[in-house]
Amino acid sequence: MTGDSQAGLVEDVLAGSRRAAARLMRLVDDRGEGHEEALDALFPHTGRARVIGVAGSPGCGKSTLIDGMVARFREKGLTVGVVAVDPSSSLTGGALLGDRIRMQRHASDTGVFIRSVATRGSVGGVSSSTQDIARVMDAMGCGVVIIETVGVGQDEVEIASVAHTVVVVLSPDTGDAVQIMKAGIIEVGDVFVINKADRQGADMVAKELAQFFQLQGIEDPPGVFETVATRGEGIEALCAALVSLGPGVDDRTRLRAEIRRRLAERVVDRLMEGLGDELEALLDRIEAGESSPYAAVDALQARLGGGLT
Amino acid sequence: MTGDSQAGLVEDVLAGSRRAAARLMRLVDDRGEGHEEALDALFPHTGRARVIGVAGSPGCGKSTLIDGMVARFREKGLTVGVVAVDPSSSLTGGALLGDRIRMQRHASDTGVFIRSVATRGSVGGVSSSTQDIARVMDAMGCGVVIIETVGVGQDEVEIASVAHTVVVVLSPDTGDAVQIMKAGIIEVGDVFVINKADRQGADMVAKELAQFFQLQGIEDPPGVFETVATRGEGIEALCAALVSLGPGVDDRTRLRAEIRRRLAERVVDRLMEGLGDELEALLDRIEAGESSPYAAVDALQARLGGGLT
Repeated sequence: MTGDSQAGLVEDVLAGSRRAAARLMRLVDDRGEGHEEALDALFPHTGRARVIGVAGSPGCGKSTLIDGMVARFREKGLTVGVVAVDPSSSLTGGALLGDRIRMQRHASDTGVFIRSVATRGSVGGVSSSTQDIARVMDAMGCGVVIIETVGVGQDEVEIASVAHTVVVVLSPDTGDAVQIMKAGIIEVGDVFVINKADRQGADMVAKELAQFFQLQGIEDPPGVFETVATRGEGIEALCAALVSLGPGVDDRTRLRAEIRRRLAERVVDRLMEGLGDELEALLDRIEAGESSPYAAVDALQARLGGGLT
Repeated sequence: MTGDSQAGLVEDVLAGSRRAAARLMRLVDDRGEGHEEALDALFPHTGRARVIGVAGSPGCGKSTLIDGMVARFREKGLTVGVVAVDPSSSLTGGALLGDRIRMQRHASDTGVFIRSVATRGSVGGVSSSTQDIARVMDAMGCGVVIIETVGVGQDEVEIASVAHTVVVVLSPDTGDAVQIMKAGIIEVGDVFVINKADRQGADMVAKELAQFFQLQGIEDPPGVFETVATRGEGIEALCAALVSLGPGVDDRTRLRAEIRRRLAERVVDRLMEGLGDELEALLDRIEAGESSPYAAVDALQARLGGGLT
C-alpha cells in the first residue's frame, strides 16, 4: 500500500466509512505493510470508545449475553463494535461463523460492526491485533467496543491491558466459586455476571462469590449482576453499570503494558530470525546432550550484547 | 546459594531426595539465585519422564480425573509427579489448597510428588516455571509427570510446548462441540476425554467431536475416551493409551519453542528495566497526544539497535 492510498484509507475511516474500516481491519489482521503507520495516524482520534472485555468459560452464554448488550447499547443510540477473539486455525475454517449466527440480527444494522480476530499463527500477537481492531472501531466512531474472549485463564490477564472494564461471565453450569478462584479470574474481573440466573445453583454461585469477597476482606467488591441472556433479563442494569463505571486499571498502567507487549512481539521475532543457523546449532548441541536450554539462552543473550546486557 | 551447596542439592535430587527436590522447586518458583545453574546441571538427567498435560474448562472434573490417573500409574509401579498450574495470586492465598484435597489420598505416598506453580506475578513465565518443576520431578525419577492447567484457550497452546501429550477433558456440562472448536483446543489435543460420561449429553459430545474430525477430513483423528472419574471408570484404558502414544510434537519443535519463550522472558524484562526514564518520557508524550504506542515502539527499537535491527 502506498503512503497516499493509506492516508486516504485513514481519512475514510475517520469519516465513518464501513468499507474503509473493513479494509483497514483486514490489513491489521494480516499485519500487512503500512498497517502500523495507519494505526499511528488513527491514534489521535481514538480514546473516546468505551472498551469492554467479556470473558468466561465456554458454555456460559457469553455470545447471547453480548448480543443482548449490543441491542441495549443500540437502543441508547450508541454505535457498537464487537471484536470476537477466535483462536481457531485454518483447520476449523468457517466452522466458527455458525456460532456468530446469534448476532445475525445485528448484521443489517449499520450501527453495529462485528469482526473476528484469529489467534492461531500469531503467537503472542492476539492482544495487539485485538487492540488494533478495537482502535479502528473507536476511530470510526463506535461509542462502545465489546471484546469477546474465549476461555478463562491467561487470556483474561491480557484482556485487562486492552479493555477499560472486564466482565467475567459465570453460569451455574460452568463450575462453582472454587473453580472460579482456581481460574484466577477474580482479580481481573471489574464486573461479574451470573448468567442463566434462572437455573438451579445460580444463588449458590452468587453466595460463594460474595463470601469469597468478604473472606478476602475486599472492602469495595466488584458488582455482581444476574442475567438470563436468552430472555434479555438483567441486561439493562448491567449495561447501565458498565457505562458509569471508571476504568479498572488506570490508563498509564494499561499503556505501559501495551508498550511492553508490542516491544516483546517485535524484538523476539527479530531475534529468532536473526539467530537462524546459530539457533539450529544450539539445538543440535542440546539434542546431542552437550548443552541445555538454560545454557543456550545464556549464550544467545551474551551474543546479542549491546542494548540487552 | 553458594555453588557448593547447590551442587549438593542437585546431587541429592538425583539421588531421589524428596526434601532436596522440594527445596529446589521452591528455588525455581522464586526464580532464586542459582536456580538456572541447578537446572542446567540437572538437565542431562532429564528426558526419561513422560510429561502429560491435562487441560479443560473449570468444572469438567479434571482434578478427579488426574487423581484417578495418579492411582492407576502407581498401580503400574510408576513414580508420579503432578504440577498444578495455579493462576491465583496472593489474594486467593491458601484457598486453592482446599481444592487439592481430592488428591489427599496420595499425600502419604512417597511415590507421588504434587506441586503447585503460581502464575500471578510471573507474566509470561508460567510455562517456563512449570517446565522447570516438571524437569526436577523427571530428574528425581518420576516416570510420569502430569501437568494440570486451568482454563482453556491460550494456556493450552503453551502446554503443547512443555508436555509430550496434551489431554483435553470435556464434559457434557461444559458446552458442546461448537464451543470446543471455539476454544481452539481441537488442534492442541492429542487425546480427548469425555468425562462424566454417564450424564445426559455425553453421547452428543462424542458424536459432535467425531463429526468434526470427519468434516475436517482428519484421517487419523485423536483418540476419544469416555470416563466417569468419580467412579474410576475408563481411566485404565486412558492411561494405557497415554503411555503407548508417541509425542504430539517432535522434540526439536518443542525445544525451539522453549528457547524462544525463555529468550523472550529474559530479554524483554531486561529491556523494560533498562529503558526506565526513557519509557516514562514516551508514556508522557503519548498521554499528551504527541505520540502513539506504535511510534513509541519504533523509537524504542531503533534506540536499542545492535543485535536487534
